[in-house]
Amino acid sequence: MHSLQFTAESSSNGMVERDFTVGEVPGVLWSPASGADRAPLVLMGHGGGAHKKHPAMAGRAQRLVTGCGFHVAVIDAPGHGDRPRSAHDEQDVAELRQAQAAHEPEGPVVVRYNARLAELAVPEWQAALDALQELPEIGAEGPVGYFGIALGTAIGVPLVAAEPRITAAVFGLMWPDALVEAAKRITVPVEFDMQWDDERIPREAGLALFDAFASKEKTLHANAGKHFDFPRFEADSAVRFFARHLDRAAAAPA
Amino acid sequence: MHSLQFTAESSSNGMVERDFTVGEVPGVLWSPASGADRAPLVLMGHGGGAHKKHPAMAGRAQRLVTGCGFHVAVIDAPGHGDRPRSAHDEQDVAELRQAQAAHEPEGPVVVRYNARLAELAVPEWQAALDALQELPEIGAEGPVGYFGIALGTAIGVPLVAAEPRITAAVFGLMWPDALVEAAKRITVPVEFDMQWDDERIPREAGLALFDAFASKEKTLHANAGKHFDFPRFEADSAVRFFARHLDRAAAAPA
Repeated sequence: MHSLQFTAESSSNGMVERDFTVGEVPGVLWSPASGADRAPLVLMGHGGGAHKKHPAMAGRAQRLVTGCGFHVAVIDAPGHGDRPRSAHDEQDVAELRQAQAAHEPEGPVVVRYNARLAELAVPEWQAALDALQELPEIGAEGPVGYFGIALGTAIGVPLVAAEPRITAAVFGLMWPDALVEAAKRITVPVEFDMQWDDERIPREAGLALFDAFASKEKTLHANAGKHFDFPRFEADSAVRFFARHLDRAAAAPA
Repeated sequence: MHSLQFTAESSSNGMVERDFTVGEVPGVLWSPASGADRAPLVLMGHGGGAHKKHPAMAGRAQRLVTGCGFHVAVIDAPGHGDRPRSAHDEQDVAELRQAQAAHEPEGPVVVRYNARLAELAVPEWQAALDALQELPEIGAEGPVGYFGIALGTAIGVPLVAAEPRITAAVFGLMWPDALVEAAKRITVPVEFDMQWDDERIPREAGLALFDAFASKEKTLHANAGKHFDFPRFEADSAVRFFARHLDRAAAAPA
């Protein structure tokens, strides 16, 4: 097992930002400047073509860290951020750009590409979680959530299905094709986001993925608008979802 | 035009409760104990078999009044609360009980019954809104929202379609059959609630009503569970929705 190595530290707006590596995988851990001890942890998966410190990640982290007092960790997905692209990555990305340029359906390309990344990323996330829980300010007993949209869902659904330490999850904006079987094994509370007029992911596809989760407690949030109109207030809703579920878990008897 | 007559007043938990009548129609107006001047107004429609002061109404009002500083008004629907039941009401209710007892589909009965109530209730609501806006603490310029689930949606959809003074609405838990044409004329922001496993209203029916709204900004909240599992946290979400839309309207230049 790889332990976690901190490589940089800074601090602003009540939030401590620490870069780390676990083995070859770079990540970032955001924590409250005070009162972080044994606080809940939210793992966040970034979107395709983005990276661990994308503004969407930093913005959501700020809400979770200073709003809820939680820790937030993000790692770069394979071929993303500070990680090298493999020949396979280059080929998949080229195929995706080609489909987009030709106005061909990109679904089949994204589904296959992201499923391959998920196979690599799930064990990386599990190793990162092992290492994060070794930190005294996190520990092995606290509640853990997962928050990832698009590629973050393609990786997160198999991760949450495989990982009993994760007890609440927010997903969205992904085709169901490679994910339905894993979704059927997920029973923790889920909030799922989709765009009602998504020009990339058919409405029925989004509804089918939401339908597949076995969770007794699950909520669909569907907003009017196209794929990239995904409204910012859903991040606030996700924060409230984690505050409700991870704080409750923290308060529950062991 | 009937003016509004106050018939009783009490106060608790920072909320002033005033019973009123507009013509023959009894209602209740809840207001902040202080700072109520020219605050936004939310009209709330109660559910079938309930009444203006049902605990669900009082609970939502408390959140809107003390949480947001808004006024909230509810009137009894025809044949509900303090209003007499007509022979037609008795007949519709008997037919509904019969269908439920025989485990027959209640949709056709509810749709017809509630559409008849809506025809009566829409002009009553418009007269009540006229009278409420005559009150100096409300006024004719402030933003107005509408919040009604089930029967409150059966009445609210034609009301909001007909009433340009209402600029944001929360609906849910109703068959689309009698409402689709009115929904297509609604363009204000809408939040719409449905139960994913509703044993009374088919999933496709709920999705069809959400789909019908012409609003550029609309959000579907679908929760796992049966009809009466409708979760209480959706009331909190509705309150945030009105805080977002009615305060923004209040702040906009005239």
